Amino acid sequence: MSSLPYTFNIIVAAGSGLRFGADLPKQFCMLDGRPVLFHTIEAFRKALPDGEILLVLSESHVDMWRDLCYRFDFVSPDIVCGGSSRWESVRNAVMTLHVENPESVITVHDGARPLVSSSVIHDAVMAACMPGVDGAVPAIAITDSVRMLDDDGSSMPLARQRLRAVQTPQAFPAGLLKEAYGLPFSPDFTDDASVMAAYGHENIILTEGSAENIKITHRGDLALAEFILDGRR
Amino acid sequence: MSSLPYTFNIIVAAGSGLRFGADLPKQFCMLDGRPVLFHTIEAFRKALPDGEILLVLSESHVDMWRDLCYRFDFVSPDIVCGGSSRWESVRNAVMTLHVENPESVITVHDGARPLVSSSVIHDAVMAACMPGVDGAVPAIAITDSVRMLDDDGSSMPLARQRLRAVQTPQAFPAGLLKEAYGLPFSPDFTDDASVMAAYGHENIILTEGSAENIKITHRGDLALAEFILDGRR
Repeated sequence: MSSLPYTFNIIVAAGSGLRFGADLPKQFCMLDGRPVLFHTIEAFRKALPDGEILLVLSESHVDMWRDLCYRFDFVSPDIVCGGSSRWESVRNAVMTLHVENPESVITVHDGARPLVSSSVIHDAVMAACMPGVDGAVPAIAITDSVRMLDDDGSSMPLARQRLRAVQTPQAFPAGLLKEAYGLPFSPDFTDDASVMAAYGHENIILTEGSAENIKITHRGDLALAEFILDGRR
Repeated sequence: MSSLPYTFNIIVAAGSGLRFGADLPKQFCMLDGRPVLFHTIEAFRKALPDGEILLVLSESHVDMWRDLCYRFDFVSPDIVCGGSSRWESVRNAVMTLHVENPESVITVHDGARPLVSSSVIHDAVMAACMPGVDGAVPAIAITDSVRMLDDDGSSMPLARQRLRAVQTPQAFPAGLLKEAYGLPFSPDFTDDASVMAAYGHENIILTEGSAENIKITHRGDLALAEFILDGRR
């Protein structure tokens, strides 16, 4: 592998977990006996030992997080407080970064994707620092058929073989991402690549994602994650 | 609930399960101590006790299936042999149906979706027999960001809030589906609604799917399915 650039890694875990239906937001639930977020942070420490990590938490969860770290003897990365949307959370983190080297890379990763592999992280980071590239996002084929809704409630099928489900970490040249997060919010911002596209940075490379890089969304996803971890042992 | 129409229910289980990486194709693997397909068939028997069921199997699996039914004292539905693609499998089944009442409905369901609920089945069937409707498919919102690939390898983000992941059973007026399956095969046929669209039957209603109506695709999906079954008890 050619040498990796300097990286700032933003792990976004500011969600309230309302969709999850549990007492605790998903990122704090236990996976293999430890909070989901510990797995996520360790995946980055292993893949990018020289990288910086910024953890974005909801202000209301910071005390609980510090308590978890204390109980499990876990060293927390630096913490940034999140906003009311994913976009606002990432923007808060991006704005705190002091980027000195223009060739460094910012990655943005969902805290609820604890099983991301080093190779998925490395592929995205390496692609993001290729000449002329505006960013890199891991993606996988979609197994479901997908339809697109029109305003009148009708819908049409999309060509599935052309569709890719986007995962994280999404990786970007640091300077470009800082620029793009200067834009005001739009409801089309579903991920960082869409924020970049709105700024005109559209040369986004798709790198190889992994079916194991699941996002813990529903409670059953924890059972699936345990199964995947068992398979790795 | 208004009265349900007469239904023919095609359960497609002719896949070789190559993606699954198990010794057995997924539809024959054990879920809660019994083959996945038993759960699927029972979901239809419960939801549509007066409906006919046709089970599409690969010819090479028929003996194993008969053996499973014997061991578990399970009454098999009528069997049709599948083809080399999903389209060919469904066509084989559709062509054997003798539809006398033009108001009857054909549903097509993935054998590997064992947890489909009665309400998902009923909603699709009832929508499919509304005046002017060409078919009904259960769908759910998509949680991932999705990009569409272009021929040159570039990709663009799609508006996620407009996308729906399509599940099964897909339900159609029987006469229309028989017509549409008279068309020659196209690689755009990823599901039955896309076959109907190619015939010009484009008024497809999206009904409510369910996050629990998962398709067993990867081995971990069985762990997820067990978790969902546990939650129903």
